[in-house]
Amino acid sequence: MKSINLGLIGFGTVGAGVVKILRQNEGIIERKLGAKLNLKWIADLDIERDRGVKVEKNILTKDAYVILNDPSVDIVIELIGGYEPARTFILHALKNKKHVVTANKALLAKDGIEIFETVSRNGVDIGFEASVGGGIPIIRSIKEGFPANNIQSIYGIVNGTCNYILSKMSDEGKSFHEVLKEAQALGFAEANPNFDIDGIDSAHKITILASLAFGARVDLEKVYTEGISMITPIDINFARDFGYRIKLLAITKRVGSEIEVRVHPTMVREENPISRVNGVLNAIEVTGDMVGENMLIGKGAGALPTGSAVMSDVLEISRNILNGGVNRVSPLSFLPRYIEDVKIKSIRDIVSEYYIRFSVLDKPGVLSTISGVLGNHSISIASVIQKGRGEKGGVPLVLMTHSAKEEDVQHALSEIDKLDVVFDKSVLIRVENGERV
Amino acid sequence: MKSINLGLIGFGTVGAGVVKILRQNEGIIERKLGAKLNLKWIADLDIERDRGVKVEKNILTKDAYVILNDPSVDIVIELIGGYEPARTFILHALKNKKHVVTANKALLAKDGIEIFETVSRNGVDIGFEASVGGGIPIIRSIKEGFPANNIQSIYGIVNGTCNYILSKMSDEGKSFHEVLKEAQALGFAEANPNFDIDGIDSAHKITILASLAFGARVDLEKVYTEGISMITPIDINFARDFGYRIKLLAITKRVGSEIEVRVHPTMVREENPISRVNGVLNAIEVTGDMVGENMLIGKGAGALPTGSAVMSDVLEISRNILNGGVNRVSPLSFLPRYIEDVKIKSIRDIVSEYYIRFSVLDKPGVLSTISGVLGNHSISIASVIQKGRGEKGGVPLVLMTHSAKEEDVQHALSEIDKLDVVFDKSVLIRVENGERV
Repeated sequence: MKSINLGLIGFGTVGAGVVKILRQNEGIIERKLGAKLNLKWIADLDIERDRGVKVEKNILTKDAYVILNDPSVDIVIELIGGYEPARTFILHALKNKKHVVTANKALLAKDGIEIFETVSRNGVDIGFEASVGGGIPIIRSIKEGFPANNIQSIYGIVNGTCNYILSKMSDEGKSFHEVLKEAQALGFAEANPNFDIDGIDSAHKITILASLAFGARVDLEKVYTEGISMITPIDINFARDFGYRIKLLAITKRVGSEIEVRVHPTMVREENPISRVNGVLNAIEVTGDMVGENMLIGKGAGALPTGSAVMSDVLEISRNILNGGVNRVSPLSFLPRYIEDVKIKSIRDIVSEYYIRFSVLDKPGVLSTISGVLGNHSISIASVIQKGRGEKGGVPLVLMTHSAKEEDVQHALSEIDKLDVVFDKSVLIRVENGERV
Repeated sequence: MKSINLGLIGFGTVGAGVVKILRQNEGIIERKLGAKLNLKWIADLDIERDRGVKVEKNILTKDAYVILNDPSVDIVIELIGGYEPARTFILHALKNKKHVVTANKALLAKDGIEIFETVSRNGVDIGFEASVGGGIPIIRSIKEGFPANNIQSIYGIVNGTCNYILSKMSDEGKSFHEVLKEAQALGFAEANPNFDIDGIDSAHKITILASLAFGARVDLEKVYTEGISMITPIDINFARDFGYRIKLLAITKRVGSEIEVRVHPTMVREENPISRVNGVLNAIEVTGDMVGENMLIGKGAGALPTGSAVMSDVLEISRNILNGGVNRVSPLSFLPRYIEDVKIKSIRDIVSEYYIRFSVLDKPGVLSTISGVLGNHSISIASVIQKGRGEKGGVPLVLMTHSAKEEDVQHALSEIDKLDVVFDKSVLIRVENGERV
């Protein structure tokens, strides 16, 4: 039986998951592939710690270049994450004509185009299914499941930590900071959680998906990114009253000749299955002009789900090696010569519906004043709720707008926030009622 | 630019969808494939009717053999459906070394093994993504998204007609026959709907999925199949009281060395997103030992969603042709020599929870008598509802059991149905609380 040699760089949580899958499901893999997957090397700075999987001592090395320069290694699996030295390792592997599998969303979001060009130039393959949505086959679905579609939009819950926190806040009425602490204690949030809760991780992932969907160079710097730390139980409850749930959505859509790529807390109607995706689960909805809406739901993180995605790429590339089909699908689905610069719409130019909560003086005429300002900026109100006494003397005045331009809304809000009858800064949450499965 | 020649057999709804996609998204396809897809022939008995897509007269033929025997045709797309002549056409195409794309679930469920063996023997490829779940990339996900998993179970809403009827009955409290008539008027159900409503179509689809998931020869005759025509608003309402929805689920799971493959109305907890999948949508949940639960939701039928799936296969095979990767993935994922006979558990031997509704005389002691009989058959009761007067003098006594063996339940019911205090035949609906995303 033929064999494919693998070199794993990064023996952390997901690395250990990959080793476990290789060991435990060896038979299944061989019966599908007709070849053996031989884990030739594991490189990690720590080669002593027990990861709970059996590994022969002599395949462990502290030096990634042992793998990168071993001519017998067919596929390099990069699971150290982060920018450097991952970037150098991957580029080195590609230049040595090795295929690469990676889960590194931060790197691909920033330097994907350079890496993918290096892939194509060297006639090798790259797999990055594990970079978005953990075990969910979202990359493969966009590339090979909907290849004849003009993709119109992607909406995703792609960060399990944020979804856990929002679900828990929603179920138990607790504050963001309280739930964050619990999540950290349970291991669902990192000690330094900013990458997740500020939406940066989600921005990395939607950047990758947007590039794939539209065959576009997407500049991460231009992705509007807003996290969940300002979400309060008050807004979660009002959302419910309006029939919505609040989710951190990563959104990309084609609007004319431009695309939108943005991450922010979003009101989603409770009839939409994505509103029911709770806890650490991820869900991604892709809309194509032919296939319509497709939603994929599954575990977005964890050693084994993410390891499963890594292994799907290892098997795909192994099949290409064994059958001579290397480079059969371009890294971004579109051939490199067709990857385009696409203009990313500024957040000020998007059109959306909005949830806005003001904290106002409880006296007649306030609604009229506020709706007057909104009207002056061409914003019309779809519904209003005013109930209960707020803290600090203000009462909440909550409204949902019809579609409006963000710039107009921001202008109106800065005007309203200066009114004498308005306390605190107003709260704005975007609403998505668009495509729905 | 290279080109791949396609021959389409069957110019019905889906066939017209495929032609529309080829025309409308020609540019997108070429920018991904680096080659042209040339629709060389369309064969149909009716070559006159306008399908709403532009087709040059000279590619239309009434004779499928024009396609099957044209040496320049690379891929034959079979969309006539049904058993014959589809089977003869497909086998003929394969023997002529043509790749085949088909949406024909009935044929694959019955003769899949023979067809797949012919595929492998002739060194060609077959694509059948469109045979299950319309535009949902479920076949590709099982074969290439979760290839390193030991698949444990698949639960699916795979028939849009049934899901439409059950959703409508649930939302509007109407009877099965009333909603069926409406569905027929709207084109959501066929004039002869038996194939759908009796669960046969779902049985075909789960047979294909079970073969794929387990690398098994699955005998369609052994798939337990029960349709939705006996479902009443009464049971839908009681289901709701217990926190469930009724869905026609196609189920397959591994239980020890055997597998279960079955189709029947099923109670699903309302917290499970699959319970929220309404109307003509399909949803399929796959559980793998590594990836955990993954659910895919989308349009399960229609010209364009199904056409999108057909085209995903056409592109995959075209890529294989262009890059020399033909046969890189076996039709059933496992290599033909590893496809096994697997014992399918008889429905009498399954273990499940059950919803049972009796129509009983409204007098003391009845519950005690009935629960006594159930207890004698080792069936324990999880909860009971008794409310409102039924018609015909009986009152409904409804209960949910803990896990029990089906055989025991059937014995108990036939005993209970003979009691003087029991009217009508008892109603039994299986409950699934197992894997949940």
